[in-house]
Amino acid sequence: MDLVEKIIESKRIYDGKVVSLRVDTVRLPDGKDATREIVEHRGAVAIVPLLDSRQVVMVRQYRQAAGETLLEIPAGTLDPGEDPEACARRELIEETGYEAREMTRLFSSYLSPGYSNEMLHTYLATGLTEKTGRRDADEFVEVAIVELDEVMDMIRRGDIKDAKTICGCLLAESLLRAGK
Amino acid sequence: MDLVEKIIESKRIYDGKVVSLRVDTVRLPDGKDATREIVEHRGAVAIVPLLDSRQVVMVRQYRQAAGETLLEIPAGTLDPGEDPEACARRELIEETGYEAREMTRLFSSYLSPGYSNEMLHTYLATGLTEKTGRRDADEFVEVAIVELDEVMDMIRRGDIKDAKTICGCLLAESLLRAGK
Repeated sequence: MDLVEKIIESKRIYDGKVVSLRVDTVRLPDGKDATREIVEHRGAVAIVPLLDSRQVVMVRQYRQAAGETLLEIPAGTLDPGEDPEACARRELIEETGYEAREMTRLFSSYLSPGYSNEMLHTYLATGLTEKTGRRDADEFVEVAIVELDEVMDMIRRGDIKDAKTICGCLLAESLLRAGK
Repeated sequence: MDLVEKIIESKRIYDGKVVSLRVDTVRLPDGKDATREIVEHRGAVAIVPLLDSRQVVMVRQYRQAAGETLLEIPAGTLDPGEDPEACARRELIEETGYEAREMTRLFSSYLSPGYSNEMLHTYLATGLTEKTGRRDADEFVEVAIVELDEVMDMIRRGDIKDAKTICGCLLAESLLRAGK
């Protein structure tokens, strides 16, 4: 079965700083038409910064969309045309003050492919060095150093409520366990 | 440090079927103002349907936002006021034709808390029985039965590109390994 939906018409609703919105009319595989609301986003990176002591450098920040303060791994939106690994290095320093010797790509995934084209590239950052004064003063972010095993427990208990943090830390831990 | 941003003004841009959009002006902790583009979503569920043979019942579907066909775990948007577990049972039958005896909540997480309030509730579904003729004819979805170990390999190789599928399957596998 050919599952592809062809776009018949596309209407721009909003062009924003972080997200834009369009509404597509599509032709379904059975010939009927349907509408699709599509959020456009440049893409983002997330970083699992792992200290040699098996601790994760995490950030706590207020998220207006969620209406609460969340404990997450560092992350950020790609600048236009920016290479994802360069973005990961930049965001890691800006949010935490740490610089990474090695940056290894863990995976790239869509966060909400039902309505958003946002692709998230996730990296494991190791060989970390703290660079005093390199944190971005404009970021309202608190750094929290958490044992990887404690992060795993927090995920199983439901204390971590951010999908990229759950994905990234579970995969990093699974690779460490496999000795890769 | 108080990280909370207070909303000064909120402007509605679009009210849609799946997503809505508003732009908030917020007061930052340092007293400066900033804008936040917020995508509103009712919330969603995802299900890791695990057969006794350690195989996962997955779905392949075309995603207009991604512009490609993705292999994912079953998922869907909450109807207004719908209980997440009831939604998970409904979506599992509609998309795959399987009914679950046990539905265990794995975690609830924000998918993109930087701009979206979408909360995803993920369940492990076990005790599965196939109900002939119960699949929804309107869903353009192909069912694929994949060994859990193969799903783990596909995640590590980057062949699965959907965040909820990565999160859900990694956590289900980690709980099985821990014998929980």
